[in-house]
Amino acid sequence: MRTLIRNGMIVAAVDEFKGDVLIEGEKIIAVGENLDPMADHVIDAAGKYVLPGGVDQHVHYSFEFKGERVRGFETSHAAVAGGTTTVVEFVNQEQGKGMADTIFEFDEKEVSKQAMADYSYHAVVCDPVDSTFEEIHDLPNRGISTVKLFMAYKGMPFHSDDEALYKALVAAKDAGVTVMVHAENADVIDILQKKYVSEGKTAPYYHALSRPTRVELEATQRVINLAAMAEAPVYIVHVTAGEVMKAIRSAKNDGLPIYGETCVQYLMLDKDDLAKPNFEGAKYVMSPALRTKADQEALWEAVDNGWLNAISTDHCGFDWESQKHMGIDNFTDIPNGSPGVENRLGVLWTYGVNTGRISRQRFVDLFATTPAKNMGLDHCKGHIGVGMDADLVIYDPDKTSVISNENSLHGVDFSTFEGYTQEGEVTKVFLRGKLVVDDGEFIGEKGDGKFIPGKPFGLC
Amino acid sequence: MRTLIRNGMIVAAVDEFKGDVLIEGEKIIAVGENLDPMADHVIDAAGKYVLPGGVDQHVHYSFEFKGERVRGFETSHAAVAGGTTTVVEFVNQEQGKGMADTIFEFDEKEVSKQAMADYSYHAVVCDPVDSTFEEIHDLPNRGISTVKLFMAYKGMPFHSDDEALYKALVAAKDAGVTVMVHAENADVIDILQKKYVSEGKTAPYYHALSRPTRVELEATQRVINLAAMAEAPVYIVHVTAGEVMKAIRSAKNDGLPIYGETCVQYLMLDKDDLAKPNFEGAKYVMSPALRTKADQEALWEAVDNGWLNAISTDHCGFDWESQKHMGIDNFTDIPNGSPGVENRLGVLWTYGVNTGRISRQRFVDLFATTPAKNMGLDHCKGHIGVGMDADLVIYDPDKTSVISNENSLHGVDFSTFEGYTQEGEVTKVFLRGKLVVDDGEFIGEKGDGKFIPGKPFGLC
Amino acid sequence: MRTLIRNGMIVAAVDEFKGDVLIEGEKIIAVGENLDPMADHVIDAAGKYVLPGGVDQHVHYSFEFKGERVRGFETSHAAVAGGTTTVVEFVNQEQGKGMADTIFEFDEKEVSKQAMADYSYHAVVCDPVDSTFEEIHDLPNRGISTVKLFMAYKGMPFHSDDEALYKALVAAKDAGVTVMVHAENADVIDILQKKYVSEGKTAPYYHALSRPTRVELEATQRVINLAAMAEAPVYIVHVTAGEVMKAIRSAKNDGLPIYGETCVQYLMLDKDDLAKPNFEGAKYVMSPALRTKADQEALWEAVDNGWLNAISTDHCGFDWESQKHMGIDNFTDIPNGSPGVENRLGVLWTYGVNTGRISRQRFVDLFATTPAKNMGLDHCKGHIGVGMDADLVIYDPDKTSVISNENSLHGVDFSTFEGYTQEGEVTKVFLRGKLVVDDGEFIGEKGDGKFIPGKPFGLC
Amino acid sequence: MRTLIRNGMIVAAVDEFKGDVLIEGEKIIAVGENLDPMADHVIDAAGKYVLPGGVDQHVHYSFEFKGERVRGFETSHAAVAGGTTTVVEFVNQEQGKGMADTIFEFDEKEVSKQAMADYSYHAVVCDPVDSTFEEIHDLPNRGISTVKLFMAYKGMPFHSDDEALYKALVAAKDAGVTVMVHAENADVIDILQKKYVSEGKTAPYYHALSRPTRVELEATQRVINLAAMAEAPVYIVHVTAGEVMKAIRSAKNDGLPIYGETCVQYLMLDKDDLAKPNFEGAKYVMSPALRTKADQEALWEAVDNGWLNAISTDHCGFDWESQKHMGIDNFTDIPNGSPGVENRLGVLWTYGVNTGRISRQRFVDLFATTPAKNMGLDHCKGHIGVGMDADLVIYDPDKTSVISNENSLHGVDFSTFEGYTQEGEVTKVFLRGKLVVDDGEFIGEKGDGKFIPGKPFGLC
Ligand SMILES: [Zn+2]
Ligand SMILES: [Zn+2]
Ligand SMILES: [Zn+2]
Ligand SMILES: [Zn+2]
Ligand SMILES: [Zn+2]
Ligand SMILES: [Zn+2]
Ligand SMILES: [Zn+2]
Ligand SMILES: [Zn+2]
Repeated sequence: MRTLIRNGMIVAAVDEFKGDVLIEGEKIIAVGENLDPMADHVIDAAGKYVLPGGVDQHVHYSFEFKGERVRGFETSHAAVAGGTTTVVEFVNQEQGKGMADTIFEFDEKEVSKQAMADYSYHAVVCDPVDSTFEEIHDLPNRGISTVKLFMAYKGMPFHSDDEALYKALVAAKDAGVTVMVHAENADVIDILQKKYVSEGKTAPYYHALSRPTRVELEATQRVINLAAMAEAPVYIVHVTAGEVMKAIRSAKNDGLPIYGETCVQYLMLDKDDLAKPNFEGAKYVMSPALRTKADQEALWEAVDNGWLNAISTDHCGFDWESQKHMGIDNFTDIPNGSPGVENRLGVLWTYGVNTGRISRQRFVDLFATTPAKNMGLDHCKGHIGVGMDADLVIYDPDKTSVISNENSLHGVDFSTFEGYTQEGEVTKVFLRGKLVVDDGEFIGEKGDGKFIPGKPFGLC
Repeated sequence: MRTLIRNGMIVAAVDEFKGDVLIEGEKIIAVGENLDPMADHVIDAAGKYVLPGGVDQHVHYSFEFKGERVRGFETSHAAVAGGTTTVVEFVNQEQGKGMADTIFEFDEKEVSKQAMADYSYHAVVCDPVDSTFEEIHDLPNRGISTVKLFMAYKGMPFHSDDEALYKALVAAKDAGVTVMVHAENADVIDILQKKYVSEGKTAPYYHALSRPTRVELEATQRVINLAAMAEAPVYIVHVTAGEVMKAIRSAKNDGLPIYGETCVQYLMLDKDDLAKPNFEGAKYVMSPALRTKADQEALWEAVDNGWLNAISTDHCGFDWESQKHMGIDNFTDIPNGSPGVENRLGVLWTYGVNTGRISRQRFVDLFATTPAKNMGLDHCKGHIGVGMDADLVIYDPDKTSVISNENSLHGVDFSTFEGYTQEGEVTKVFLRGKLVVDDGEFIGEKGDGKFIPGKPFGLC
Repeated sequence: MRTLIRNGMIVAAVDEFKGDVLIEGEKIIAVGENLDPMADHVIDAAGKYVLPGGVDQHVHYSFEFKGERVRGFETSHAAVAGGTTTVVEFVNQEQGKGMADTIFEFDEKEVSKQAMADYSYHAVVCDPVDSTFEEIHDLPNRGISTVKLFMAYKGMPFHSDDEALYKALVAAKDAGVTVMVHAENADVIDILQKKYVSEGKTAPYYHALSRPTRVELEATQRVINLAAMAEAPVYIVHVTAGEVMKAIRSAKNDGLPIYGETCVQYLMLDKDDLAKPNFEGAKYVMSPALRTKADQEALWEAVDNGWLNAISTDHCGFDWESQKHMGIDNFTDIPNGSPGVENRLGVLWTYGVNTGRISRQRFVDLFATTPAKNMGLDHCKGHIGVGMDADLVIYDPDKTSVISNENSLHGVDFSTFEGYTQEGEVTKVFLRGKLVVDDGEFIGEKGDGKFIPGKPFGLC
Repeated sequence: MRTLIRNGMIVAAVDEFKGDVLIEGEKIIAVGENLDPMADHVIDAAGKYVLPGGVDQHVHYSFEFKGERVRGFETSHAAVAGGTTTVVEFVNQEQGKGMADTIFEFDEKEVSKQAMADYSYHAVVCDPVDSTFEEIHDLPNRGISTVKLFMAYKGMPFHSDDEALYKALVAAKDAGVTVMVHAENADVIDILQKKYVSEGKTAPYYHALSRPTRVELEATQRVINLAAMAEAPVYIVHVTAGEVMKAIRSAKNDGLPIYGETCVQYLMLDKDDLAKPNFEGAKYVMSPALRTKADQEALWEAVDNGWLNAISTDHCGFDWESQKHMGIDNFTDIPNGSPGVENRLGVLWTYGVNTGRISRQRFVDLFATTPAKNMGLDHCKGHIGVGMDADLVIYDPDKTSVISNENSLHGVDFSTFEGYTQEGEVTKVFLRGKLVVDDGEFIGEKGDGKFIPGKPFGLC
């Protein structure tokens, strides 16, 4: 079966042109002008952009924090409705179990029949014993090309010390697995948290004060040094600040394979949001913490120049009412994280492309093309090319709306960007050739999403 | 009329895939799988790469040095035979005449009926009077989007001092014209040249000693500062050394729109080549001078990382026997420059792609895609995309040869890369849909090449 | 004859202690406790500081600008009254005359019988012919160890281009002569001046706008590169901005012998002073121009850390009424420069030492010890040590006054620091053992000052 | 009682001059020419240098490693004979005991009646409980102004993690106590040690391979970040490498109060020394490890420029035969450290001053003046000034010898600089006015050394 999308402005990381995309089955088979008008379905995209489906390389559909768990893959249609057709999920290893086993048990139980977006997995080291590091060599055989460690979160099972980090790097290098790191100094955060709480400073705003930029800078420099000794690449997730970005850029300039992403919220919000009254600030409790407007500008410049190579969401769906309120008397009990997977395209388009901070080419690169490369998924995901999966978004630039949680599918009781204007609308989405969003409405089904194995050596 | 190129490995700056390219008239109208088998011509590219025709943004077909003139556009088939379908020529302004008038008089007299490659023009300031700087505002209307100034060559008409440079930058900024600069400190070179000659040190090797890296670094830092004051972008041509590249990178990191290219010879040769006996060294007399092997490595790393964004040739066709020998007794009388336009693809493929220094994607970006952007030609040149000019190269990776001037079309009596192995061969070239190289032989005609106006604001 | 200064707090660049200084003739012969109570004169310095007489390495007693000339050595008692016992004067070479001949003719005619402070000389290249550069080798024999070039002031006889600069550096290196540079890009200033004037922007404030920090940064980087090629040390005079200081520091960090000073006014004033109404701004017209408060902070940090190694005044005594008013209709006609030699100690003590920005040790180092070294005068000048010239200042920290031109000796009709509070007072000054200031009053005589030859290789 | 040292060349950090030093009791009371010839003792120093007694801010007379203990204060005459009159000892806190109590119990038992040099103490955190950090506030009252933490040595009681480090920094800042840090990443060293040993690579050379420069760089950057967050100064001990020095310099350039020393051995030796046959290499097993000749050059440049501000010895007297041989089968069992306190002056004079790498002024600064400041001892130690302790060294530059353990007093069975030529000889030493070395022979007594309390805020 063939579908022809006609006369759209087809946007790639390199260029854009007005033309057609021809789909056969799950794949793109041609791009051109005046392609096969005899296709089974012909969709007119005149006046609209045709974008590759987004790849969000950083989402959490299984994260737990002090006993509370985020919304799962049953809400993954939110990603799709927002133009993101592939998500990459972090799965925390269970103690005493292999990382891949943890992942595929989770997959079977909670994902494979639920997923409405395509997905891939990051392993997460939580049990830093020798067998865990040995398992890294085997991960690519199971379609896992990335392994994450948390330098933050002292006392949590998923916290890693330098020993774990270094051992993971050494193992990962040989296997072509990319180590991803949440870089914050756990000890200093722990001391500052206790200090503020002991002083009665328990409001959400103290979350930001207990996690200053230097805790992120320190951990970033540390893992750069560890990676240099292990001769391994490293990917720094959710970079929040100009200084941290510069540490990454400087390492790259020294010839080291160090890379990083930022997230939509670090480009858009700042720590004043944590000071919102009536515990509203808790919605913005995430780690690392939100920074300053100057950092936002530095990050926009960084993504425009490729000093950071992707923009993800760190989507993390905790309810404000029932879950974030655990920390009403103590900010350290607020589950960290905020939802965002649904708004990545709309927000970046409105505040990045339409303000002139990034071009449409750069947007596509940051939203889809390079994340797919980072994850070893670029053989089938991330741009509009012949032979690629037919993951396509038709974006109507002329519609304007206001982001509101009422219209959201993410299953969380608040929206991180509530009240923000969005210019443009996702009107249609194809997932491997299947129309799953039409007229802006999700029309897909649970189980439409498929596991996409990541290939190793993505950053080498 | 339609031509179908089938089953090639189509290489772009973002990706590559096996498939077809469909040409109608002068344009690419589709890329895909199993495209229109009913095309008038069907060419099988199985086992071969299909590359975009190269854009060499830095060639000299009209340069004069102490009364001697280089080979002209009558030799431009050498570019085409080497896979470069578009060249951008520097035309030195005549004293008392407008830059564009100089260009289009030259065009009419020596280019339009001669050119076998498509071409565009850089204006070159030689008469730094007010009317010249005023003319910059009008250049884009005449299809000229770049203007070059020479900081080197004290005493030559084309030498520019800081006043000329700054005035050009101020004018260019408004007009969206990109200022390109040959950056070397003219005064120090002049002193060192006179010193060596007065000491009887007249051999070609002293050319390199009289132009140390610092003369290039100084001028580069100077023009960066001038550009910062004028708030204008600058493009530094023929960067030769790691330190110079770092100055450009550092300016970019500071948020300034400073860019640069390097040339094939600076990646491949070093100053020991100037010490070759029997005046062979004169073949390698070019400015800036060849540097060290460490600089070569720094430059390869720079092009791989995008710290320099294009690789051109600075093609300059002076004969060794009849022209370079002018300087047999005094290296300052050797006409500067060497030919290279014919070998860019082959040498970069062999010593860049096949050694693993750069990927095929990166090669295409440096060889065609980004040069086209730099020059304001990316609306029709530089990559394989729908609606683009059908400038295509079919490259057979399995043939190996040895570069020899005997087989060369450039009309010069020596080859810069004589004796170097070349892996792969340009077997077919299409210029706007017309087959101009077949079976490795040039079959086009004089006048096939067309002037392509450059659009302004290429680097903004 | 012996003089004993008792019980003062004797301050050196290394330490300070309460004790005595014993003078015999022109020299210090001992420092200690309870020294020779049988001295001919005994002066009680209890409760006061005993400081080395200051060395101001940058003054102008002979400068001319568009036909106007500054106050000369007949006003040099102002230096002494302000605690500066040695000044180093820049003497612009006369065209067609040797630099040293120019200096010593001036010395005989206008200095030797006038000077009330000790003095040394900088040669200044104004006639860049070969014989001038050759003369550099001979300067140390005549007691001149420094030679200055102006990169600024396009069209003036004292402007130097890169050729002159480089030749001077090459010659100076061998001779152990230190090249000092006024670093500003002359071409850009000239263009900006003409632009503002042509737009009718003729007020003093446009002096600052026509000389942005980048013109100083550019020239500084340029001379660093030239010096690196000549393998010569360079001393950058009157550094005004944090960015310029960083360029010097960075060169030093790279192992290059690059040094710089700042001046009192760049630590204290900013470009808003040029906006004072009623042509008051003209008092602050000096080159380079005054910068921002942030630059002041950067410079204080620099002198505290030794990134700049001296604080001088660039004392330049033009009257406001009769001379600066030449530029009432055009800021480019305002003679550049301001007086300051009388206030260096008082201002630095009040706003540097007493605010905690620098220690007393650091003050002495910047005010006397290191300037003496820079100038090759440290065999007899710059600190309180046995065998050194008995140039001593007794400073009473408990007196407070307001700086007012009424009480000034400098012979200029305004004071740069008019109205500023000064904490402490120079109560006594000894010049080579002779009491020349007593009870805060100058009691010396014309001709008390002596020429002190500078030794070469001061910065090597 | 008065002693007069006549006609020596008296060397200070600022200058030097030929003259006399007059001592009364324990103090210097005058420096000058032709001072009191009626003194009780008159010593002629003509042709010799008079230097301030050295301050070695980093020695170990009580260190234990895997049950083995170094030579103690009974060997402290070695320091004195080598021109070092003050040593600062690191005393590891006993578990469950206060740091000062540990120190003064040790003092009473093993130091006060043994010491032949003056001494001060560093506290060392080994029991990182709250009471330990609280005690820091009280240390200055007990004459302790520095507290050290070891980032290296995983598993040892004296290892500190980031929590301990940060808590110490916070406490120290308020108290004016300087935190000193042994900066190496303990986890990576531990992994590399186990790796090498498991591979049978047990020779001393693997000590160096298991502690690459990056482990030191990482820890240095980490503690800089921690200090920046605590707003506290930090002193990095025994810097071994150019890259580490640059991290310190860069922090200083950013306005942070970060300082560091190097040691004689890192200036003189390199890691090839660990490869000496017959277990000779074990003599050079120290931490951090010896580096490369390029690092030596970088460190010489650093001490010359003040990028590192002191040269100490890290003197650590383990016998080779009876103690270092513990590690004959496993380099991780070799007690770390080497003796050097006796050779600091001679080696630095010979290989620093006499080679022209540093001036005599700079030598005195690094050997005595600045170490005294760092330690809060500059009110009485570190230079030749009125009121200072009469700690003086008479150095005869004309004698030359070869360093040999036979002539050594340090009580260790080998000398780190065995066989090195020494130019010059310590002929006389005064300790607080008492002649304790005469004709090159130690003539003092146990108990001559006195505890000198350090004052706080030495680095603020
Ligand atoms: Zn995270
Ligand atoms: Zn996350
Ligand atoms: Zn050129
Ligand atoms: Zn060229
Ligand atoms: Zn000046
Ligand atoms: Zn001046
Ligand atoms: Zn240590
Ligand atoms: Zn130690």
